[in-house]
Amino acid sequence: MGELKFEISISLDGFVAGPNQSEENPIGEGGMRLHDWVFKLRSWRHAHGREGGEANASDELIEKSLENIGAHLMGRNMFGGGPGPWGEEPWDGWWGEEPPFHTPTFVVTHHQRPPLELTGGTTFFFVTDGVEAAVAQALEAAGGKDVKLGGGANVAQQCLAAGLVDELQLNVVPLLLGAGERLFENVGANLGLEQTLCVATPDVTHLRYRVSKGV
Amino acid sequence: MGELKFEISISLDGFVAGPNQSEENPIGEGGMRLHDWVFKLRSWRHAHGREGGEANASDELIEKSLENIGAHLMGRNMFGGGPGPWGEEPWDGWWGEEPPFHTPTFVVTHHQRPPLELTGGTTFFFVTDGVEAAVAQALEAAGGKDVKLGGGANVAQQCLAAGLVDELQLNVVPLLLGAGERLFENVGANLGLEQTLCVATPDVTHLRYRVSKGV
Repeated sequence: MGELKFEISISLDGFVAGPNQSEENPIGEGGMRLHDWVFKLRSWRHAHGREGGEANASDELIEKSLENIGAHLMGRNMFGGGPGPWGEEPWDGWWGEEPPFHTPTFVVTHHQRPPLELTGGTTFFFVTDGVEAAVAQALEAAGGKDVKLGGGANVAQQCLAAGLVDELQLNVVPLLLGAGERLFENVGANLGLEQTLCVATPDVTHLRYRVSKGV
Repeated sequence: MGELKFEISISLDGFVAGPNQSEENPIGEGGMRLHDWVFKLRSWRHAHGREGGEANASDELIEKSLENIGAHLMGRNMFGGGPGPWGEEPWDGWWGEEPPFHTPTFVVTHHQRPPLELTGGTTFFFVTDGVEAAVAQALEAAGGKDVKLGGGANVAQQCLAAGLVDELQLNVVPLLLGAGERLFENVGANLGLEQTLCVATPDVTHLRYRVSKGV
């Protein structure tokens, strides 16, 4: 059985989205600065069908972390909101015709809809019976490989609180957002952490932990 | 002129003290676990007049960071509370007859009292007109060396928000406290951070930043 690997970019003051989030701007004011480091990378550009980019220590790490991923998991806001961010019609999310996931991708949502198959190997499956069911389905679909959870904060908090996460990687960005959405709310203190990796670049520091339940 | 260097131990979920802080237990429930890593170190034991201890990467860092310190700065809870934690009589704080600071040490408080000279070079000065005055007095007393601010959270937040901190070092402990006192509250987003050091050990990861004002 694979593992659930959760990775997210976070400001030094603990925010994963800036203030004044909305359906049109789910990352909040200034929140996109959390991701500046990744857009430069060769591996990111490659996953999005583009040439070039930097091949630094972050790049190696991201490239390697995608090697054994058999499915993705995310919340509805990361997919693209509810029935449709500006109306009731279902839409295909933020990620365009060829999303960068290239695997079965499970969206935790309250809005039931049929699977959405897009180009390049990404099929979105919409799971309406909670995070435990979504994780189980994603692990099943991954066929022995790992499942990557990228956010948002709400689904991640639920997975952490339920002890479903096996590996946690924070990409700590040297930046203060001052307000917004914190990752560590409603997570509790019942997880054990063992640091397994630390890679620093000027743009971001990657901290990785094994997570164990019930300490 | 020296600089204001702020260093604090923090849980991965952003707390610098656990829940249910009180005068008797200002570090809160579980909060002492933030400091387990430091009690083992040779440099800590040496500063407290004891033999032995581990000489690892953290130890080297702490040892080096104390080299150019000419004064310390802290809040009243870190000194030992107000007029006296269990009464109105002034007392000598948490730190015993020979505190580990060995320099002039400035306490930001609302309670005026004369300087308190103890053994080993530590004299506590009580500053009642705010953090800017306290920082100015500490820098003056440091005579060109640096001033070390160790906490607590409230004074640190005031110093950060006022743009008084030149260097920030977080000692990130792989631990979730779940609740308690956050470092990053009321600090705002007007500081620029440039990471200058990252040292990881199994017990703690040290992240150091240059802080610049008004970004």
